[in-house]
Order: sequence, then C-alpha cells, then structure tokens
Amino acid sequence: MHLVAIGGSDAGISAALRARELDPTTDVTVVVADAYPNFSICGIPYYVSGEVTHWRDLAHRSHADLDAAGVALRLDTTATAIDVDGRRLHLRDRDGREDTLAYDELVVGTGATSVRPPIAGLGGPDALGPEDGVHLLHSMGDTFAVMRTLGEQRPASAVIVGAGYIGLEMAEALRSRGLDVTQVEALPEVLPTVDPELGALVHTELADHDVQVVTSTTVDEIVRAGTRAGGRLRVEGHHSDGSSFTRAVDLVLVVVGVRPDTGLAVDAGAVTGVKGALVVDEQMRTNLPHVHAAGDCVVTHHRQLGITYLPLGTTAHKQGRVAGENALGGSRRFAGSLGTQVVKVFDLVAARTGLREHEASAVGLHPATTVSRPDDHKAYYPGATPIHIAITGDTDTGALLGAQLVGRRGAEIAKRVDTYAGALFHEMSVDQVSDLDLSYTPPLGSPWDAVQMATQAWVRSRDAAPVLLREPVPAGPAQD
Amino acid sequence: MHLVAIGGSDAGISAALRARELDPTTDVTVVVADAYPNFSICGIPYYVSGEVTHWRDLAHRSHADLDAAGVALRLDTTATAIDVDGRRLHLRDRDGREDTLAYDELVVGTGATSVRPPIAGLGGPDALGPEDGVHLLHSMGDTFAVMRTLGEQRPASAVIVGAGYIGLEMAEALRSRGLDVTQVEALPEVLPTVDPELGALVHTELADHDVQVVTSTTVDEIVRAGTRAGGRLRVEGHHSDGSSFTRAVDLVLVVVGVRPDTGLAVDAGAVTGVKGALVVDEQMRTNLPHVHAAGDCVVTHHRQLGITYLPLGTTAHKQGRVAGENALGGSRRFAGSLGTQVVKVFDLVAARTGLREHEASAVGLHPATTVSRPDDHKAYYPGATPIHIAITGDTDTGALLGAQLVGRRGAEIAKRVDTYAGALFHEMSVDQVSDLDLSYTPPLGSPWDAVQMATQAWVRSRDAAPVLLREPVPAGPAQD
Repeated sequence: MHLVAIGGSDAGISAALRARELDPTTDVTVVVADAYPNFSICGIPYYVSGEVTHWRDLAHRSHADLDAAGVALRLDTTATAIDVDGRRLHLRDRDGREDTLAYDELVVGTGATSVRPPIAGLGGPDALGPEDGVHLLHSMGDTFAVMRTLGEQRPASAVIVGAGYIGLEMAEALRSRGLDVTQVEALPEVLPTVDPELGALVHTELADHDVQVVTSTTVDEIVRAGTRAGGRLRVEGHHSDGSSFTRAVDLVLVVVGVRPDTGLAVDAGAVTGVKGALVVDEQMRTNLPHVHAAGDCVVTHHRQLGITYLPLGTTAHKQGRVAGENALGGSRRFAGSLGTQVVKVFDLVAARTGLREHEASAVGLHPATTVSRPDDHKAYYPGATPIHIAITGDTDTGALLGAQLVGRRGAEIAKRVDTYAGALFHEMSVDQVSDLDLSYTPPLGSPWDAVQMATQAWVRSRDAAPVLLREPVPAGPAQD
Repeated sequence: MHLVAIGGSDAGISAALRARELDPTTDVTVVVADAYPNFSICGIPYYVSGEVTHWRDLAHRSHADLDAAGVALRLDTTATAIDVDGRRLHLRDRDGREDTLAYDELVVGTGATSVRPPIAGLGGPDALGPEDGVHLLHSMGDTFAVMRTLGEQRPASAVIVGAGYIGLEMAEALRSRGLDVTQVEALPEVLPTVDPELGALVHTELADHDVQVVTSTTVDEIVRAGTRAGGRLRVEGHHSDGSSFTRAVDLVLVVVGVRPDTGLAVDAGAVTGVKGALVVDEQMRTNLPHVHAAGDCVVTHHRQLGITYLPLGTTAHKQGRVAGENALGGSRRFAGSLGTQVVKVFDLVAARTGLREHEASAVGLHPATTVSRPDDHKAYYPGATPIHIAITGDTDTGALLGAQLVGRRGAEIAKRVDTYAGALFHEMSVDQVSDLDLSYTPPLGSPWDAVQMATQAWVRSRDAAPVLLREPVPAGPAQD
C-alpha cells in the first residue's frame, strides 16, 4: 500500500501522518513543491516581526521528525499530472528532470495561492515584483523575498493592501520593525470577517500603534516612483467618495485573500464547485477513483451553510486527517466547519464562530444580534477588562447561530470562542448556553461566565423567555 | 404574588433577580442573616490579600443595585421557622425582635457552614476563636474577624489547615501580606480535587513562593502557647507515618470544607439526602409545598453521578435562577453539574470538569486516564508553556468522562476546561473532541488545540482507533 500526498502543508502532512499512525506498514510519500514541508504559514508574520528568530522554527515538524514518522518526502518536486487510470503521478524536480510515482491512494493537498487583485502594475509582462518591493505573501518563498527586501532595501514605509487576518498581522510585524505602515482596506472597516462595530475596535488598536488605517479605499495602481525621496513606489487609488488616494512608500504588500490551487486535479478530471474549489464529499473523496483531496484546495463542508469555501489551517488539518484515514480504507467523515477563527492584533484579540447576521439571512434564517460587554473576570479583582461579544441567534427557533468576540489579550478570548463553537456544534439554543457548567474563579471569570452573560443579554433583548408566564416578559436586570 | 428567598448569597439573590426579570410585578423579599447581601464569597481571599481594596467591592451588586432591581432586603434578619401550612416565615432581627413574613412561594438558600474538624481546642466551651487568632472562613463576618486579627495582632506566621481551593488561595493571600505560612493537608497531596500528579505541580508552585507545605499530616490539637516568642499558638498533629508535627504560629486558619446549612428547612419537615443536604428535584422543589431550595444547602444533580453533593457558586447561581423561575410557575430544570472548577494559585491555574478515574470506577465504569503536556500555543511564538492535561475516558464506550488541567496563568486554562465541560455536557466521545472546530492563531493556540492534542493522546494510548483497520493500531506520531 503506497499513499502519496501532494502538498507539504497542513492537509498533505496530516494525511500522511494519520496514515502512518493508523498503519505503520503503509508506505507514505509526500510530494512537496518547495523545500519547506510542514511549515506554519500562519506563523509567517511572527518571523517577519522578529519574534520567531529563525525560519526553521516555523516548521511544525522538522524533516527529521517526518523521517522518524516514516513519511518519505520528495522536496522541490512539482506534480505535473495525475494519471488517474494508471494511478501514477508525473513529477518534475527543480532541475527539470521528469519522473513518475505510482500510488495506490492519492491525497491532493495543493492548497491555495494568493489572489492577485486587478491593480495596474501587479499583472502583465512588466508586473512589479519582489525586486521592486512589491510582494504577495503566502508561501515560504514569498516570505524569504519579503525578508530580502527588508534586509537589503531597508524600507522605511509600507502600504499593506488588505486588512484581513494576514494583513493585520503584517501591519503589526512591520510596525514592530519600525516601518511607517499604511493599511488600505476596500471595505468600510478593517477585519471585515467581523461586524463593523467590532472591527472598529481593531481599527482603534491599529491607530493606537501608529498604523495609518485607510478604509473604503481601493488601490488602482502601483508604479515606480521617479525618485527614492519619500519612497520608491507610488500607490494610487480612490476612496469610496471618489476622491483620490496616493501614498509614496518603499514596500507594498498585497494580501487580499487566496483562491484554491486546483489546476493539477482539474486537468485530471476533478470537478470543481464553490469558488472553483475541488468538490469532495465529507469523506474527502473527489470524483476521481482513489483520489482524495483536502485543505485549501477543496470546498468546505460547513455545519450551518452546507457547501462553501472557507480555507483555514484548522480545517485543513482535520480534512487531511480524515483523508489519510479513509485512504487506508476508513470511513471517517469531516464533521464540518463552523468558521471558527481568531486573530491577535497588537494587544487585542478578535474571534468569531458560526454565522453573522447577514450570512444567516442569506440562507433564509431570521437572525438577530445583541452586543454586550461583560467583563472577562470579576471587576473587583485587578485587571478586569470588558469583552465585546456579539451573539447572533435565530428569532424563530432561539438557536444560537454565531458569536463574535473582541477584547484584550489575556482575556481568554481564543478559548471563550471555543465554548461557543462547542455550543454551535451541538446546535444549542442561545438560552441553553446558560445550562453549561463553566468554570469560575474571580481572577479568571464570573459565576455566569462572560460567554453566558452575553447569551443572557440576547435572550433578554428578544423578550423571548424560555417558559410561558402569565405576563409578557420584558428586559430585566442583568444576571452575573 | 410574593416570593421570599432566605439567604443573601448566590442562590437566594439569583432566585430573586430571576423572578423580577421574568415578571416585574412580582413582590420579592430576600431575608439576609447578616448585612452583606450578594457578596462574593469566592472573592474573600483577594480582599484579605489586599488586591481588593475595600470589602464593599466584593458585592456582586450593591444594595442600591438590588433596590433598583426591585428586590426588597431584610438585612440582619434570621429566619427562625417556616410555617409551611400558613406560608409564613418567622423572623428575628439582630435586636431580638420577632416578626412574621407571609409568602406565596419560598426559596430556601441558606447555604453552607464551615466544617469544624475534630481538632482539640476548636470545640467545646473553651474553644479557641478569632480573639485567639484561630479562624474559620466562610462568611463576611469570618472575613472581618480575620482582618481584625491581621490588623491588630500583626501575626508573623500562620498555619492553614486544609489545602483545598480556599486554603490554597488563603496561602497566597497571607504570603502576599508577608506572613510565614505553613499549609497542612491530611491527604498525600495538596488540591485533592485533582490527581496527585497534577496536585504536585501546585505543591511546587506553593513551595516556590515559600509556602511550607506539609502533606499527609493531621492536626490534632491547637493550644495557646505559653509565650508569644515564636507564636502565641501551638499546632500539634501527626504525620501519616506516626511521627509528630508541631508548629508555633500566631494565626491558625481552618478551611477543610463546608456542610449544608439545613436546620431551618429540616425543622419544617424538609427531607435531606446525601451529606445531609436538602433533597430537591431538578426543578429545585423540596418535598414541602411552595418551598423551593437551591445552592449549597441542597443536593446536587450531577450529569454523570446522579444525586451527589457538590457545592459551587456557579451551581448555586444556576439553581437559584431555576428556583426563581419555577417559583413563578415555570418548569425549568437545572441541567446538572459537571463539577467544573478552577483555581489560581500564585501563577498557576488548576481546573477540572467531570470525573476522575476513581470517581468513574465508583459508579461502575471502566475508566482510563492519559496525561499529556501540549503547549498552550505554537512553540515558535514566544511564551509557549506546557499544559498538563489528564483525560479520563471510558474504555468500554470511548466516552469522555473528565479532564483535569494545570498550567501557567495566561495559558487560558480556565476557558480550555470549559471546552471539555461543553463536550461532557453533550456526552461526546474522547475521539469526537477532534471534530470540534476550535480557534487557532499561533500566539494563542495550535491547529489542533491543546484540548484536542490531549484527547488524541488518550485515543492513541488506548490503541482504540475509531475505524476498523486491517492491522492492530499502535501508538503513533503526535498530531499537531
């Protein structure tokens, strides 16, 4: 039995390790396009910032660890074609040598590539690139290019196009290196994955750390400036009111999202779906025999939305593990995503799980959202800090639909969102969250945890008491 | 409609507030034996330490807050008898004046009192007390007595009898005031609510902060010492090997647990059960008509153990809320406890939920426990710290039975235990925990959260793979 995985990131490596874990007699090979198997893409901003001192530390596991686990690696090797009928992979190494690799079962984990937005200067034969100080950022190769620019050109200023997770983390990273940073976002608020009311808190945190935040602004063009004075690049764009935006800087980072990298599988006959991602079932099977796929290149089974596309490292690990198990004859199912996410921006943490109001409305639900600001722990104990929590619930059924949290680092936001993720997994009602037996000690919580104070606020705001009483139920005093 | 609650702590106040929240036309009176309604008993150690600067700050709500919520208070008033047939309460104020108070529905929330262990010198007509520097600690009155001793006697040294939550928190509090502290525990390890392997970590943390920890040692007697030199009290006891233990100190704190305070209800005909606690159903009804009871004075419906006694503030809040709702004609059920608990000891946090191995065995299950030490977040990001996690699962069914966690403050232990509490609430298997969509960012977690790495370690250690494969499944490489 020979399992081959294509892609050395989360999905491919998880599949490989799971197969070896379940059956150590399995031969497992992972084909990796670059020399960096099992690297943490999510850790790149912390290498750029200097918090991670050596890029090798970004590896979840070293080459030696993977060897020890019995995973054979083919590094610097591109899979050029899948021969589905012959169960054979065509390969090309970096010297251009061709080869083939037979498999019994294949896991495609080709991941995603950076979206290249329609900005003049980014495309075409004269496209600006790393040597000009214009960067995309998704791979280790991209990372080394950014580090070269930082080291060799000593840029004093940067524009970051995009204010999603990676954009925000890179704003912090470049600020911590002393660059003058302008963050440009096309939408009206940063971190568009949360409600603008919560995104505004992140906006303030950026401003407090001297990031110049420019929202509702589209970048149209990047050009080489005539002189290095004030920056060698000029970024041109327009605000949503039509007025123009110009910035002269030394470095431009374009981080506006990713799209699935599916060419290899599509050429072999794989069917694609939402956003062009490979169609897989919950067992991570493609339409091709003996070909599984997992990670950022496939559609995402979402527990609330059905089939969507939502690339996340956590999901890729889970899907890869399922694919590796099923490639060995298992019948494990990916339990589905809830889109649980968290990001640290300077000293603020923002997290979400489940649906926001507009997402729930889009699938025919009748949601309502209530924002409350319970403290992370008892106010009498030093250091208490409010957490902004937005609870979205179904006004027809009372079901919990989603939660968004923003608060200070140290307020256990990342694990509080997990409590909601667990509640969503089990389709609890907003009201039932109060039934959960959560922990309490004054330095770290409240008798009703902040998580429950927020759901209780939702219930009160809906006038939807859990029992029928003689009188209509109005909003009342807070429960702690 | 007149709802009367007896007891101004968590259960009574929660019942009162819930009734007012659901129906603001309800008259609500709370009878409070002292002058401190709605005080946080759990906050006492932080007032003693000086971290809470004024005792009034320990109130969850001020008298004015409760007034505003429409809750009438009868302070410094003892309920001396319940006239069940007449639906009337007999009261006595602090001047000895008798009164009666009619009710339609009654909620008994008389709480618990400190256990007074069989130590010579603690009982009898010549019992040592606060004026001698010998203290129990459960009420605000007890707290003021301790503060008087600390302020007036300026003790230099203390013995704390008991190393449970309050004992450990008081060790920290007294150390932070500069006292020389000896902590004496009859059992072989401190924090006996977790496995000794994890309690040992707390033991080390105490020792690192110069608390002298003496385990396997029973205190037999406390006597007045002849001279103040080296302490005005002498604590005598014996180690489990029979050798003797003696300590001369200025202050003795006895904190070895609580027992339900049920005299009032029992005199009225209420039935008691486990540990003498009042028997209630899941709707918090006693056997007496129109009499509900909640909090530390009642038995605890435990989701895994059935009826037990497990007094916790979180539980009291939930039960009180249920009682208040049902007193108004509702039919809410207390969803049951999982015994979820957390304590901070200096810079360490220890938490548990569900069952430990011996507890599961005692109810006929076949549990096994696996301890692992995943990092709280990616090791490459500064400040990563291991969390000791003990997972107990059912070897017959694979069900998750319990989790215990010990780690550094800041490692989000308190909310990570909540993820397990949610999983237990929904009776997940250990293996299914890997299906939860938990949050991840390198500074705050891992692609498989520590919570999931620990359950995966349990699954591997059991050789119990979730699918049937050709070969037996051995332990394999760790998944991150």
